[in-house]
Amino acid sequence: MLLTLTTDFGPGGRYVAQMKGVLYSRAPGVTVVDLSHDIPPQDIAAAARLLEAAAAYWPAGTTHLAVIDPGVGTERPIVVVEALKQRFIGPDNGLFGWLEGRFDECVALSRERLAPAGDSCTFHGRDLMAPAAALLLSGTPLKELGAAHASLQRMPMTDGPRIENERIEGRVAEVDHYGNLITNISADLLKETPRDERLRVTLGEHETYGLWQTYGENPPQTLVALVGSEGFVEVALVNGNAAEMLGAGVGDAVCLNWSDTL
Amino acid sequence: MLLTLTTDFGPGGRYVAQMKGVLYSRAPGVTVVDLSHDIPPQDIAAAARLLEAAAAYWPAGTTHLAVIDPGVGTERPIVVVEALKQRFIGPDNGLFGWLEGRFDECVALSRERLAPAGDSCTFHGRDLMAPAAALLLSGTPLKELGAAHASLQRMPMTDGPRIENERIEGRVAEVDHYGNLITNISADLLKETPRDERLRVTLGEHETYGLWQTYGENPPQTLVALVGSEGFVEVALVNGNAAEMLGAGVGDAVCLNWSDTL
Amino acid sequence: MLLTLTTDFGPGGRYVAQMKGVLYSRAPGVTVVDLSHDIPPQDIAAAARLLEAAAAYWPAGTTHLAVIDPGVGTERPIVVVEALKQRFIGPDNGLFGWLEGRFDECVALSRERLAPAGDSCTFHGRDLMAPAAALLLSGTPLKELGAAHASLQRMPMTDGPRIENERIEGRVAEVDHYGNLITNISADLLKETPRDERLRVTLGEHETYGLWQTYGENPPQTLVALVGSEGFVEVALVNGNAAEMLGAGVGDAVCLNWSDTL
Repeated sequence: MLLTLTTDFGPGGRYVAQMKGVLYSRAPGVTVVDLSHDIPPQDIAAAARLLEAAAAYWPAGTTHLAVIDPGVGTERPIVVVEALKQRFIGPDNGLFGWLEGRFDECVALSRERLAPAGDSCTFHGRDLMAPAAALLLSGTPLKELGAAHASLQRMPMTDGPRIENERIEGRVAEVDHYGNLITNISADLLKETPRDERLRVTLGEHETYGLWQTYGENPPQTLVALVGSEGFVEVALVNGNAAEMLGAGVGDAVCLNWSDTL
Repeated sequence: MLLTLTTDFGPGGRYVAQMKGVLYSRAPGVTVVDLSHDIPPQDIAAAARLLEAAAAYWPAGTTHLAVIDPGVGTERPIVVVEALKQRFIGPDNGLFGWLEGRFDECVALSRERLAPAGDSCTFHGRDLMAPAAALLLSGTPLKELGAAHASLQRMPMTDGPRIENERIEGRVAEVDHYGNLITNISADLLKETPRDERLRVTLGEHETYGLWQTYGENPPQTLVALVGSEGFVEVALVNGNAAEMLGAGVGDAVCLNWSDTL
Repeated sequence: MLLTLTTDFGPGGRYVAQMKGVLYSRAPGVTVVDLSHDIPPQDIAAAARLLEAAAAYWPAGTTHLAVIDPGVGTERPIVVVEALKQRFIGPDNGLFGWLEGRFDECVALSRERLAPAGDSCTFHGRDLMAPAAALLLSGTPLKELGAAHASLQRMPMTDGPRIENERIEGRVAEVDHYGNLITNISADLLKETPRDERLRVTLGEHETYGLWQTYGENPPQTLVALVGSEGFVEVALVNGNAAEMLGAGVGDAVCLNWSDTL
């Protein structure tokens, strides 16, 4: 029985310690794996991206519990979603928006089913979501945990890249741990695009030519563009930190241009 | 077999790596769970608060190993405490002071029982405490690990809140990961206290009125006071960081006042 | 089935989340233990030191997967090493240089054996190394994973301490989490060296006398030298941070001198 945990509580604090205690108490034999406790406070979108990037690699039957919950205490529902042969539990605030339209079953947790009346209501992760996860792990069917929930809240749409004649303009969507600048330009958009030195990649005042297969084909400290392991164009500095060197970050425009005429 | 680990070694270093190796070597089948490696160096009180906050949620039979040990190498005893149907191992330096008066059994580890003479004595976590934990996990009774130990060292008492006529003055005891300011004013002290807008909560130059049930009842960036999940009054900024916004931190005075006359 | 994971990905990101998913998917029942995700980016030497310090404490049969891989995408081999009754998987870039000359078997992974042609090649940790580790955990013999690999790349040699008549000059090799300054002067070099106050230990303008057994024999904030738990001389501040107090760090000279005449 595998359960992953994703929170914005920071590592090593009492909130995570209490949630794990509840999980091990109520679902003996569970293996709890930390996906992340380093989600920036209340950054639902960052947690959603992590879960979306990771879920495909986890085995059928895994339960994913995510507590990024700025709306705790309001009427926002807590949902259990069955999708990708896995289960996802957390507030319906966009965390699972990427599963909208492709889940098999979804219920909104019934609070009465889980918590005695009068219980503390500031920590739903410990008092409602972890107990619900433990029930799932013990074989309780979804429909016993609450009523059907029709649709999942999506994250507010962010602008996709703009595609023009021989030009694609996107932006940096994420900076990874190495300082690589990962754009929102998917490799799917590059079918017509040359990948050799005819392709000019521009970020602010900086530019580089062509799309490489890997980081290792160029000398250290070379600025390169490539398609990363998630299928998006990224701008990287070989064995270095592109974000620092270029002073670039999330939101900055990245432009691919293969027009003959400037 | 569950064992939790709490240290001030920082995550990802060799000390934790070695201790886990010893535990998995000597207690095959153990599940080691990190409670925290982010305790500030030598901050016994912080580790004691974490253990006290977490223990109630863990199952009977759990073993908790805690290494915050500024006195390593001195004659301070290492103790094994049986309480709350769980076991606690670590130096008797205040870490387990909150169990004084309510433990079932306590022994001071016999060094001879655990380490061959002449062994390195700078890392008791790896060379004495982890082996002792492994023996416990393998079923060795407490009394075989050392002699009875009568009482546990308490943390130096910190000032409790001052209660006057229609006024309670406490202080910030802890700032959590979100910047919420958690005071030492327990909800038990509020029996006579109005919770509506008659109650004025003051922190430095800032004030707010009433005690709310949850964070979610007010608009973002509102300063609110509420009783938190641990049963203490806290001052929070809805969807924001109160500590940063107010420039406040541990030790700052927080005052509750419901007198009609200022 | 124990597998440890050491990377420079940082904790809580998608790379580790994906690798763990692959491991739990392909080696059901594995216990994955994080040794470190806090290795400084591309710091092969730091990871090698951690693995060398930890391995002796882990049980026979443990698999250690390490992904510090600045050469990803180049022709550098990925190796599986059998040594110390354990297995080590990672790029052959110095990570396992400390096992050179004392391993039992070593193969270079055959890429064809592991990844379908045309797969993404920017993330070997997830796509090649984790699957190889899962095969090992499932009982696949080393020789089915690739061809024999004769020798392991060593880390560039660093200067050892200089030993003169009644004088040893070394340097700070590492600063631990507490600010203790761990030198490259091994206790083996001290056979002729007095350990009492005749021995003068100098670091920049600071000095202290004698080598102590433990931190605890002196009052807080005393500067002391001692032989640490790994067998190297270290300079420490009792209950304090020597690196900060002395403004010292890796590379600084540390001198032991027991000559009667200055």
